[in-house]
Amino acid sequence: MCRWLAYSGSPILLEELLYRPEHSLIDQSRHSRLGAETTNGDGFGVGWYGTDGGSPALFRGIGPAWGDENLRELAGAVASPLFLAHIRASTGTAVQQSNCHPFRYGNWLWLHNGLIRGFAAMKRELTLAVDPGLYPHIGGSTDSEVMFHLALTFGLVEQPVCAVERMVSFVEETAREHGVQRPLQMTLGVADGTRLWAFRYSSEGNSRSLYVSTDAAALRALYPENERLQRIADGTRIVVSEPLGELVGAWQPIPESSYGLVEPGNAMLGDFKP
Amino acid sequence: MCRWLAYSGSPILLEELLYRPEHSLIDQSRHSRLGAETTNGDGFGVGWYGTDGGSPALFRGIGPAWGDENLRELAGAVASPLFLAHIRASTGTAVQQSNCHPFRYGNWLWLHNGLIRGFAAMKRELTLAVDPGLYPHIGGSTDSEVMFHLALTFGLVEQPVCAVERMVSFVEETAREHGVQRPLQMTLGVADGTRLWAFRYSSEGNSRSLYVSTDAAALRALYPENERLQRIADGTRIVVSEPLGELVGAWQPIPESSYGLVEPGNAMLGDFKP
Amino acid sequence: MCRWLAYSGSPILLEELLYRPEHSLIDQSRHSRLGAETTNGDGFGVGWYGTDGGSPALFRGIGPAWGDENLRELAGAVASPLFLAHIRASTGTAVQQSNCHPFRYGNWLWLHNGLIRGFAAMKRELTLAVDPGLYPHIGGSTDSEVMFHLALTFGLVEQPVCAVERMVSFVEETAREHGVQRPLQMTLGVADGTRLWAFRYSSEGNSRSLYVSTDAAALRALYPENERLQRIADGTRIVVSEPLGELVGAWQPIPESSYGLVEPGNAMLGDFKP
Amino acid sequence: MCRWLAYSGSPILLEELLYRPEHSLIDQSRHSRLGAETTNGDGFGVGWYGTDGGSPALFRGIGPAWGDENLRELAGAVASPLFLAHIRASTGTAVQQSNCHPFRYGNWLWLHNGLIRGFAAMKRELTLAVDPGLYPHIGGSTDSEVMFHLALTFGLVEQPVCAVERMVSFVEETAREHGVQRPLQMTLGVADGTRLWAFRYSSEGNSRSLYVSTDAAALRALYPENERLQRIADGTRIVVSEPLGELVGAWQPIPESSYGLVEPGNAMLGDFKP
Repeated sequence: MCRWLAYSGSPILLEELLYRPEHSLIDQSRHSRLGAETTNGDGFGVGWYGTDGGSPALFRGIGPAWGDENLRELAGAVASPLFLAHIRASTGTAVQQSNCHPFRYGNWLWLHNGLIRGFAAMKRELTLAVDPGLYPHIGGSTDSEVMFHLALTFGLVEQPVCAVERMVSFVEETAREHGVQRPLQMTLGVADGTRLWAFRYSSEGNSRSLYVSTDAAALRALYPENERLQRIADGTRIVVSEPLGELVGAWQPIPESSYGLVEPGNAMLGDFKP
Repeated sequence: MCRWLAYSGSPILLEELLYRPEHSLIDQSRHSRLGAETTNGDGFGVGWYGTDGGSPALFRGIGPAWGDENLRELAGAVASPLFLAHIRASTGTAVQQSNCHPFRYGNWLWLHNGLIRGFAAMKRELTLAVDPGLYPHIGGSTDSEVMFHLALTFGLVEQPVCAVERMVSFVEETAREHGVQRPLQMTLGVADGTRLWAFRYSSEGNSRSLYVSTDAAALRALYPENERLQRIADGTRIVVSEPLGELVGAWQPIPESSYGLVEPGNAMLGDFKP
Repeated sequence: MCRWLAYSGSPILLEELLYRPEHSLIDQSRHSRLGAETTNGDGFGVGWYGTDGGSPALFRGIGPAWGDENLRELAGAVASPLFLAHIRASTGTAVQQSNCHPFRYGNWLWLHNGLIRGFAAMKRELTLAVDPGLYPHIGGSTDSEVMFHLALTFGLVEQPVCAVERMVSFVEETAREHGVQRPLQMTLGVADGTRLWAFRYSSEGNSRSLYVSTDAAALRALYPENERLQRIADGTRIVVSEPLGELVGAWQPIPESSYGLVEPGNAMLGDFKP
Repeated sequence: MCRWLAYSGSPILLEELLYRPEHSLIDQSRHSRLGAETTNGDGFGVGWYGTDGGSPALFRGIGPAWGDENLRELAGAVASPLFLAHIRASTGTAVQQSNCHPFRYGNWLWLHNGLIRGFAAMKRELTLAVDPGLYPHIGGSTDSEVMFHLALTFGLVEQPVCAVERMVSFVEETAREHGVQRPLQMTLGVADGTRLWAFRYSSEGNSRSLYVSTDAAALRALYPENERLQRIADGTRIVVSEPLGELVGAWQPIPESSYGLVEPGNAMLGDFKP
């Protein structure tokens, strides 16, 4: 049911996180340990912001990430201070580029692990609630993209956390009317070019795994002899569906029903209460 | 803007029409003569019925038809008494399998050449008019598929010609409200496993080209020495966006604002008056 | 490292073996139990003979078999008395259609599970030994296809078992000169339109798994109440990398260093001694 | 039969040449004016060097360039001082990533428009002449890639022009032995990270078109009011199969049987005499 990661910090080559770690995202595409499925082979995507701001670029493919030569090339050539990457395990919708995460709207990127249970039955009603001006921008057929457009409708650009809460509430209300139990399972990565949010929530209070890397200064103090860690800039944070390696103390679980925000000079955790 | 063909007659290998004629559909994928574009390289599809009835099978791909090795193999191995094939030139929507024609619903196949002008602006309204029970069945993002689901909503299964007329009227009314001129351009191929319909219509009365092959008996009489024609069974008809060859007298244009129906033992032309 | 199956018997829809069994080949593409890898997502292929003889048709794709809609459609529409299907887990060569099994030469089909160790270093020498007249027919970059063309060079069409033995000996000799240990690991499925061979061999005497279904009459006697088994025609045999279900007594391992031959009215096992 | 371009100058976004000009390379993929085919839809590729030197990156796809969303994204996000791009019209070999140009060896990139006539018959002999140490590096099945590896064998890294001449001579000699007339038709783009070569040659002395942009200072003087031209850095050169626009005086044909070299501070034309 998908794995993802998000990075915020000093610019690094994408391959530093996508390929090089022991349990990199690409490794997870074949051998996920904590996911609902071990295989995440139904497409992938990466969205990255340039060092000079501006709209993010996307690279999305419909084959498995592990075998995509273009992704490997790109990851070795492109450096970014803020990027999100996703590997997909479809929960039923088609394997096509327009269903690959991240989704983009202006400067915003959105990716999702999880699902809306009973989505086929609720899709019409959920989609109708999307702002008519945003409606033509929906290009694929996934629950994840509808969630994004609902959040945009509910004010994502102005008040991100509040808008995501409203989106979740709306999905859960709609599900209740349809008699769907435990409708929502989600971890979300959202970015606007400067800030990065990570949400962890599920209707049943038993959400998919989500971790954030420990503060860089603390990590350096913990492992004074690890050269790689010594190079990490202050303020760097990595959010991951599952840890990229076994380094004790490097990864903190994001608690149930909460969200994290990373921005230059600041990182915080908050309650997520739809 | 796409080219297509449909066949109804005694079972033949798909390649007899897709590959072998001088100006076959595959040739048209690179060198269309009468189309709005010479190149139709944004995907393709074929839907065929078996000789024992039952639901049709689909083969659809997102690359150009001319280079697809699987299509060539399939066309040399599969024989069918009723099949429809389409090569796509996108008018803006994504190149993905769920946007490739033909579309299928139960025993029904549907393919389209043309477009709804201003579709992005009208898509929400048109899609809302689709029967909620049919809504989840829309898998792609094209105007053509929405037209199909509108026709189904308006009774395609019970009264095909009338339902297509109602669909056209509804699209034209919606366009009028949106201030869109000349909204609809279409030739349609529709089949239910026994019957084959071909529609030619456009809001401006200047529709894309569409031809039907001459009655087999008349053709045999015209060319007594042509062995291939002598083998064609009575009642065989081929509908094409553009003729498959130069044989004089073999192809009749389907008139503006009309439709053709081919079924075992019968072929007729009728007015199409939305 | 790939999984495959081969069927010889009365014509059945491909989906009877590819999709319907509890542990079908498509299930194995995501959840192989006996393979070197649990995931076989680097392409797939099926080659089938028609009921009227003639050259086999191929359908090969580069995405994972589990998500291929065209494969599912084809499998539900095409019936065959003799077919071979393969799901690939690349051992290093590119994921491209020309590397997907089965490979074809005239009426012959060939598929392989396993590898030649040290292939990159030996490829030139092995390829040079291919008959120059066959050389241009090599379209991909795999060890498996070179093995096929070596077997063809050594007389596959005239004396199949002997030619495969000579191919193996040649690979092992070449490996010895290159100092490669235990060079060959293989199970092979080979067919000519009437006969089906299955080979199981490895240089180290510890070959990949391979099973053949029990004689149909014996199976029916064993399970008199199983309706599906009662429908299986005499002489039907299925060869599989791993059993398609848990039915006790239904699958016999093919012994190390041996081969099986299935043809109308006959099935036999023999020693394979390169 | 393919179209290509190569750029050497101050870093620009790839899209400046791939998408923005009136008759951009992407436009040429559908509407080539000077090519042997108007459609170049059998794959594409771009290879680019970073601003900090190092090995070039590749992005290659098997669909038509005109519809590739990832190429468009990449072209808008990546800037490079030296890049080569290619759109392919296959002359018979498979449409697969390993057959897409440019080809890469270390710091070297190579792309080709044209063909070796009779290649299937000569392929074995030509491939055998490739240095055995380079042989395993051949990944696809095209004449173009064999030409590259022959040139590498003949000293491309040390003496580029001489090595290409020797490659051509070798191909022509081999063709003579096989009785093939006019065997070679080629324009080549070759780069090593600093230098860019363009070759124009054919056995019959009637080569595919090839142009180089006029010296930047001369262009600025010619069009003092053209803002875009005023921004072009001294020393910038673009080599193209066909001009990207109609600007009089902007493009010079590269003469028959000659080559151009562009490097920082220098641009020259020379005779090419195999």
